[in-house]
Amino acid sequence: MRLGKDTRFVVVGAGLIGGSLVAALRKSGAHCRFVCVDQARETRREALRSGLFDEAHADVAGARPESGFVFVAVPAGSVRGAVEELAPFVGRSLVAFDSCSVKRPVDADTKEVLGPEHARRFVLCHPIAGREFHGIRAADPALFRGRDVVMCPHGNDRDAVRAVAGIWRRVGARVRRMDVVRHDELFAVVSHLPHMLAFALVETIGRDPDKKKMLDYAAGGFRDFTRIASSSPRMWADILAANSGNMLDALGDFERTLANLKAAVRTGDRDALLGSFELSKELRNRWIRRTAK
Amino acid sequence: MRLGKDTRFVVVGAGLIGGSLVAALRKSGAHCRFVCVDQARETRREALRSGLFDEAHADVAGARPESGFVFVAVPAGSVRGAVEELAPFVGRSLVAFDSCSVKRPVDADTKEVLGPEHARRFVLCHPIAGREFHGIRAADPALFRGRDVVMCPHGNDRDAVRAVAGIWRRVGARVRRMDVVRHDELFAVVSHLPHMLAFALVETIGRDPDKKKMLDYAAGGFRDFTRIASSSPRMWADILAANSGNMLDALGDFERTLANLKAAVRTGDRDALLGSFELSKELRNRWIRRTAK
Repeated sequence: MRLGKDTRFVVVGAGLIGGSLVAALRKSGAHCRFVCVDQARETRREALRSGLFDEAHADVAGARPESGFVFVAVPAGSVRGAVEELAPFVGRSLVAFDSCSVKRPVDADTKEVLGPEHARRFVLCHPIAGREFHGIRAADPALFRGRDVVMCPHGNDRDAVRAVAGIWRRVGARVRRMDVVRHDELFAVVSHLPHMLAFALVETIGRDPDKKKMLDYAAGGFRDFTRIASSSPRMWADILAANSGNMLDALGDFERTLANLKAAVRTGDRDALLGSFELSKELRNRWIRRTAK
Repeated sequence: MRLGKDTRFVVVGAGLIGGSLVAALRKSGAHCRFVCVDQARETRREALRSGLFDEAHADVAGARPESGFVFVAVPAGSVRGAVEELAPFVGRSLVAFDSCSVKRPVDADTKEVLGPEHARRFVLCHPIAGREFHGIRAADPALFRGRDVVMCPHGNDRDAVRAVAGIWRRVGARVRRMDVVRHDELFAVVSHLPHMLAFALVETIGRDPDKKKMLDYAAGGFRDFTRIASSSPRMWADILAANSGNMLDALGDFERTLANLKAAVRTGDRDALLGSFELSKELRNRWIRRTAK
């Protein structure tokens, strides 16, 4: 499916991700009709004011998504509701995709709500791009450039997969495929767990009566470590709740590592700490070198 | 005490911190004689090659530190040894100071090794400046500019405190005073704990057989969260071992917070997660606004 002048490109949820994809597509020269769906009146106003969207509607039906593309870019907890609204309109002339950080629930919801036949039109996507800012004002046409988009085909029609991959590549992303179950296990460890730990650290400090004084002395290490604790609370509450089984596994692994380090601190076993930290540093440095290319 | 042409400025441990202070003092126009003490021959060579140091010696005695300044810039676990080497030379014409991230052990060591009278010449300092790079090659004359240096006077002579504060101010730092015990409690929470968590997270991933694959999908959040896990393993093993009591308290607080979040994940209590994350985000954002000034 092409992005022609008459193509309707509906974005459900006009936040950072939805807004950035539209900004990037516009910058790439796509001249289709960009339609925003958002329950919040203020967001719809901003969507129009930003010049990114040509229309704005309070619900999916108002956006008339019978043909073209629908990008569901809402927090994990709101995906099912969006899929339910979209259900009456899904057919051969529509391609839908999402941006959710957890894929098993979206896999299950689309199959259950749309039925197995129509779920073939809904392509599961997870763009590995984010920011601690959110909302359409933070939209950035370069957000996906050079980033990975993980796609988890779940019996999709080939033309739908090809069309969605084409959109991501058009905005500079690299498309990689992964099994749905594997996706959620993996991101529990490398993304969801760090977010939970960052939130937990800030909360631990927040519960201390001296917190203000303490934070006055926090330095760059604390700032970077906790950057992700300024992410959208709603988005992350949704993600952790939606990926709870994998989160509990990842947390269990982490707690075992922490217990070992704690025992070494208690017994003053400097060599055990040193051995652990050297391994961690080496692993991270190898990763940095590899990703820096 | 002034930094005159004939003043000897001895730095024990020519790493990032020691090298950066010399680089900054030179840049500020200080024309004293900078003397490096380091057990490692290669470090002494680098110290001379860098142009930062005028002399390099393998031990403190060789540096003839009878008068002038001595800056002890070694990892926490090596401070006592350095103080022992320094002991025969401490008197009214010498001012010594250190850069250790944990102050109670340095307080105790200096009083025990030097005796209460001579410990008055040793000023406890903690510059809140660091980097995940280390070694003299990473020395940066701007490292302390705009940063806090926490000073924990422990019965020092006023002229010694004034001289050391003058050095830090000269390189652009802001000097703040704090009680020794309070210092170690506070930094356990805002600095030592985040480092331990970052190391633990990387180690948790490292123990997974799929680790390489997992890290391929880690994004900017992971990079920032774990930046401090590329810090010097030796330095951090020393710090955690030296501040073990406070570390265990801070870890206990953190584990309680994490247990609450874990229970919310297990029961799918999205509202509890949301409430926690909103508090954390608000607290962090207030901190960011305050520190950005």
